[in-house]
Amino acid sequence: MEQNYKIIVEYDGSNYSGWQIQKNTGQTIQQKLENALTKINKKRVQITGAGRTDAGVHAAGQSANFFLDVDIPVKKIPIALNTELPADIICKKAEKVDQDFHARYDARGKKYRYRLLNSNFNSVFVRNFVYNVYKKLDLKAMQSAAKIFEGSHDFASFCAAGSSVESTVREIYSIDLYPADNGEIWIDVMGNGFLYNMIRILAGTLIETGLGKKTLSEMEYILQSCDRNNAGFTAPAQGLTLMKVFYN
Amino acid sequence: MEQNYKIIVEYDGSNYSGWQIQKNTGQTIQQKLENALTKINKKRVQITGAGRTDAGVHAAGQSANFFLDVDIPVKKIPIALNTELPADIICKKAEKVDQDFHARYDARGKKYRYRLLNSNFNSVFVRNFVYNVYKKLDLKAMQSAAKIFEGSHDFASFCAAGSSVESTVREIYSIDLYPADNGEIWIDVMGNGFLYNMIRILAGTLIETGLGKKTLSEMEYILQSCDRNNAGFTAPAQGLTLMKVFYN
Repeated sequence: MEQNYKIIVEYDGSNYSGWQIQKNTGQTIQQKLENALTKINKKRVQITGAGRTDAGVHAAGQSANFFLDVDIPVKKIPIALNTELPADIICKKAEKVDQDFHARYDARGKKYRYRLLNSNFNSVFVRNFVYNVYKKLDLKAMQSAAKIFEGSHDFASFCAAGSSVESTVREIYSIDLYPADNGEIWIDVMGNGFLYNMIRILAGTLIETGLGKKTLSEMEYILQSCDRNNAGFTAPAQGLTLMKVFYN
Repeated sequence: MEQNYKIIVEYDGSNYSGWQIQKNTGQTIQQKLENALTKINKKRVQITGAGRTDAGVHAAGQSANFFLDVDIPVKKIPIALNTELPADIICKKAEKVDQDFHARYDARGKKYRYRLLNSNFNSVFVRNFVYNVYKKLDLKAMQSAAKIFEGSHDFASFCAAGSSVESTVREIYSIDLYPADNGEIWIDVMGNGFLYNMIRILAGTLIETGLGKKTLSEMEYILQSCDRNNAGFTAPAQGLTLMKVFYN
């Protein structure tokens, strides 16, 4: 009898073409996890991730589910998985879940963090997980701008060109932008779902605001114009981390 | 006219055979810096580091000095250097110093940090800079043990076998052991100089104390025995970082 399991996974996305297995791309997180699970299960396992993180994006708390035939104590799953996984993917937790649990469809929200290092020089200790902005950022201007994007909006201006979705309306529960240790600025975004590159374009727009290239009064216009050309640049993938997926 | 410069350097030691250029070893930090400086100076430059960190050891604040013939504004030195250096070595600061300044001989003290991750699972975000101890450590026992090593002592028990020094007496100004963010425990050691592998053997001995393999009452004996066999294991290089070098 198959059992449905949910796991929490952390990964350094630097060397991956993102979460999802795709044709003609490099290695993916999903592939590495499925290979490890298949070894444990001795039969092909498919895994469903809550968020399909892009190439280079990291996760501190990605959620995923899969079915196993093999009878293994749930506590041993992270240890067994980590033995098979490369060092840049770590399973932190596993639990049994209802047979109809689905990591993506059942997710009620996600929290992402964009990490900026606002410093003259990069740092060897965090360089793979931050985007280094050399010029001094105006934190207050960025904080005020961020608040404008909270709530339900048509985020068409913050959607990468070429992506086809039925609706570009999304709800951002909160955006918190604040200084963290060692010169970092963190942009924490919580929402029910995000368009393609939406958080990276939001981050890029906020960075341009912090650099004085865009003003607070332009933010409403950018949002209402529903035109990708009006928003800021797409901030690099390496600064983005999926922090947590929320379920009921 | 040659000018003497002092720089502060940060590096991820993971991919290096340590600071010092040696025959028949892999690449070194010193070599990378000398190559970069030679490009800027257009004439061979030799650099003197304050501490000869071992293979795999990192630095957040290594100090070094060198002489340049070329006339370059001191503020531009870090930028010029970082353009030539690989991403895992970063010059943070440069200043002009007296012609007789010597980064090693003039150093009055050094601060090292040994980072432990006391957690069931490693973390992809810090894995190259910590030593992951899975079992729960007794922090209080480790803190009490650490205090025994403060002051001037013969640290022969904490010196790697085979190293030849005139005296194995060293002074540790302070050892502070405390919990840091995300399950890390930091061991901060300040002193006027250290024997070969001394801090890593101290860290290993403290870890064994935290695991209950060594008791507090054994610490005095270990120190007084002047026998390497009585101390704990040599904790891995990757957990060690040279934080700062002090000068008058």
